[in-house]
Amino acid sequence: MRSATCRTTTSDSVASTRLPDHRILETMSDQELGITTSKEHETGEWYAELVQKAGLADYAPMGGFIVTRPRGYAIWERLQNYLDAWFKDTGVQNAYFPMFIPESYLEKEKDVVEGFDPEVAWVTHGGYDELEERLAVRPTSESIITPFIAQWVRSHRDLPMRVNQWCSVVRWEATETKPFFRTKEFLWQEGHTAHHDEADAYEETMTRLGQYERLYEDVLAMPALTGRKPDHDKFPGADTTTTVETLMPDGKSVQAATSHYLGTSFAEAYDVTYVDEDEDEQLAHTTSWGLSWRALGALFMTHSDDQGLVLPPTLAPTQVVIVPIWDEDSKDEVLEYAADVAVDLEDAGVRVELDDRDNRNPGFKYNEHELNGVPLRIEIGSYEVEDEELTLVHRPDGEEATVDREGISETVEEHLDTIYAKLYAEAEQTLEGEIREAESREEILGTIGQHGGYVKCGWCGDEDCEEPIKDAIAAEIVMVPLEEDEAPIHDECAICGEAAEETAYFAKTY
Amino acid sequence: MRSATCRTTTSDSVASTRLPDHRILETMSDQELGITTSKEHETGEWYAELVQKAGLADYAPMGGFIVTRPRGYAIWERLQNYLDAWFKDTGVQNAYFPMFIPESYLEKEKDVVEGFDPEVAWVTHGGYDELEERLAVRPTSESIITPFIAQWVRSHRDLPMRVNQWCSVVRWEATETKPFFRTKEFLWQEGHTAHHDEADAYEETMTRLGQYERLYEDVLAMPALTGRKPDHDKFPGADTTTTVETLMPDGKSVQAATSHYLGTSFAEAYDVTYVDEDEDEQLAHTTSWGLSWRALGALFMTHSDDQGLVLPPTLAPTQVVIVPIWDEDSKDEVLEYAADVAVDLEDAGVRVELDDRDNRNPGFKYNEHELNGVPLRIEIGSYEVEDEELTLVHRPDGEEATVDREGISETVEEHLDTIYAKLYAEAEQTLEGEIREAESREEILGTIGQHGGYVKCGWCGDEDCEEPIKDAIAAEIVMVPLEEDEAPIHDECAICGEAAEETAYFAKTY
Repeated sequence: MRSATCRTTTSDSVASTRLPDHRILETMSDQELGITTSKEHETGEWYAELVQKAGLADYAPMGGFIVTRPRGYAIWERLQNYLDAWFKDTGVQNAYFPMFIPESYLEKEKDVVEGFDPEVAWVTHGGYDELEERLAVRPTSESIITPFIAQWVRSHRDLPMRVNQWCSVVRWEATETKPFFRTKEFLWQEGHTAHHDEADAYEETMTRLGQYERLYEDVLAMPALTGRKPDHDKFPGADTTTTVETLMPDGKSVQAATSHYLGTSFAEAYDVTYVDEDEDEQLAHTTSWGLSWRALGALFMTHSDDQGLVLPPTLAPTQVVIVPIWDEDSKDEVLEYAADVAVDLEDAGVRVELDDRDNRNPGFKYNEHELNGVPLRIEIGSYEVEDEELTLVHRPDGEEATVDREGISETVEEHLDTIYAKLYAEAEQTLEGEIREAESREEILGTIGQHGGYVKCGWCGDEDCEEPIKDAIAAEIVMVPLEEDEAPIHDECAICGEAAEETAYFAKTY
Repeated sequence: MRSATCRTTTSDSVASTRLPDHRILETMSDQELGITTSKEHETGEWYAELVQKAGLADYAPMGGFIVTRPRGYAIWERLQNYLDAWFKDTGVQNAYFPMFIPESYLEKEKDVVEGFDPEVAWVTHGGYDELEERLAVRPTSESIITPFIAQWVRSHRDLPMRVNQWCSVVRWEATETKPFFRTKEFLWQEGHTAHHDEADAYEETMTRLGQYERLYEDVLAMPALTGRKPDHDKFPGADTTTTVETLMPDGKSVQAATSHYLGTSFAEAYDVTYVDEDEDEQLAHTTSWGLSWRALGALFMTHSDDQGLVLPPTLAPTQVVIVPIWDEDSKDEVLEYAADVAVDLEDAGVRVELDDRDNRNPGFKYNEHELNGVPLRIEIGSYEVEDEELTLVHRPDGEEATVDREGISETVEEHLDTIYAKLYAEAEQTLEGEIREAESREEILGTIGQHGGYVKCGWCGDEDCEEPIKDAIAAEIVMVPLEEDEAPIHDECAICGEAAEETAYFAKTY
């Protein structure tokens, strides 16, 4: 934990050397404020503590539900802004469909019923009356959106048709609650499109997969693997399910977004047809694609540390915090200088906060803003004022720089870019070291058992060859690479020894 | 319907005089495209037709639910952007709370149970299992949000605390579906705040009421009345319910947003206390305030006409449509000129669409964009190219202007402002003529019966005096003015003749 150590030293030394004693009048100790568990040794407990102490979420009274607190929600809003703009730039329109789906609608696509029936929350009463037909709280909305796409599409000129909604969905899973990773209700976006033919629909599927990958790489500072799910793990009713997979620090893979080419199965079930240029009726090809707040969970888990939340500047609600350090003599000039810097940054579009609270000392403030994930701290004391300089400190690695007051907006933007690049590089380095090869069942078991991470191997394509790995260590095939023409990395299936059809990536999962 | 008549004449004459016959090759006639009912004579049917033909909403398979289509949703998104920015500028943070509320939580505030119990949709099963405790699909979220505010507020320094969420809520009302006005599920925002004392909480209530009023006046081009609800019509558990009321063209009033000062009733029920500066424990005062997509219904109903949707430029997804008019000889130069104008406007931040479709004639395009509520049309034919001019046509009144090509962005922005001002002025004039006085029960009944609109009169403050009006013509007291010190307009209650305590506004309601 290089970054953590550096940082604490920095804060403490500043707090103890620069501050007159009488300014230390905290009611809350740093101990109470800070995280008490270790990311490395107790990842689960650490994550739960992080989420609550950094003001991201709380547990709701009903098991499986969370409350998304303002800091957590502000990060979600920023993520939405990126993705929503990309969607709109590529022909997607937002809409809103009912949160309830009549049971008979769900039943029209048989794979969907089988896939989701065990997880559906059912509304049975409205007011004092029992409903004639039960209503499913949407677990996903193909069954209510596709019938409307069917109504709206008449001619080939209406295609492609693309709608998206940002909403919450409910899946009644019995597993343990893990905020943002696994909750009975979760926020997401779900896109649904209809196209002339397979080629166009498949291209759409890949466009959305590419946008999800871009979100991870360019906004969340997380390298990602993309591929498709094995046939036995596809979305119910899908022809092809593509996936973005990201690696968590505990060596498990997270399915971080999915994009499905649905073939014509939903079009058949809900009658999505169009009249082509020759006046013939044709069946449309459809897609759906979604990204949930699990992206936030993966983000928090990947970058944060024992000091608290670490956020890339792209998503941080506060990108820069200015902490002025004064004694009675220097107070006015320090605060004036700090306020002036804050105005400059704000004018340049930087999300800056000036923390001029009188009842907290700088050391406390450093810890609090580190806990809350502010990427860059600017320290201003009388030395800085005198020299017309500023001290910048990066989160999480504590790297310090003394910079000129002049041109501070450009300098800060450069530093924010550097912070992003460092976060990405560290995650990339971790990922690269965590993809290993195996040539036998024992090797798969041993490698994942010992290191976690991904193990890639030749695979015959048969689900039966995944079973023994799943049974032994709860690892599964999380993806196979997308390139159709690429030969498998080995000629033989690592499990059964038959001819390998493709390369499989095994990993434990969230 | 001054505007409608002007407009049709304009379009037809342009279409028939400027166009060579061979360009008229529509497959869909103007008749099919247009609205066939009359706003004046069949308001209900006209509204239902408008909503569907202008692509705002569709009816869902379950009675009481609608699907919000892309154009309708895009208008909601723009409305959200305004209000959300104002909220954030005034200390509000967004968050997200579970859509389900355990029955025992709802029951903690007795007025809420009584008020909402008959309208709650209940989830009773998760997957194949019956739940131990029923979960209410939120009809409003005081009962789940207030307990968390109670957890988050410790000291006076944590106050005021303000959270807001944009979400949908469900109220199982048995009345007829009217898209955006009355639906079992509706989109809204609900703000919830906690404060030191009554004065601070009441100020918050008024701040939000003022923002709602501003939204109507400055964004929706609708004048609004503000006041408070009579005690017998307050939000369950509230001390004071304030309201924004807007008048619909059929003479009925719409409750267009509400802001509640909740006193300490919710703080008591959910234990929202804080330690004050003297280390004493105090009960907080809370507020809640909400605006739903009913605002869209009121907007569509107010401005639209028999040609279709009319939108203020503030909310229109497309503010300006450019319709080039060409024959074979002029095609290239007309399209080039039009594209150039489009680029200029787009660079200036105007939401512009260039409709260069080859398979539709200008007359059809005019009608379609009028149906869809585009506020300003720019017509460009070879005359305009030659003279370096443009023809602008306002929606809905059909006012035309020939303007210089140079400085077109500024000119267009001025025209959009003018269009907004005209919409507002017309709605204001309507409202002013629809507020009348009455001094007796017979006069109230006669005036509302004959004209609709508002009737203001002296009122003793007793609910019993509203009853006979309600029974006779289904009109009720929609508000009383807020100014506490202001004397009632008449000395005597118009119904019972006792001393009047305040001025009541009677109206029929949506």
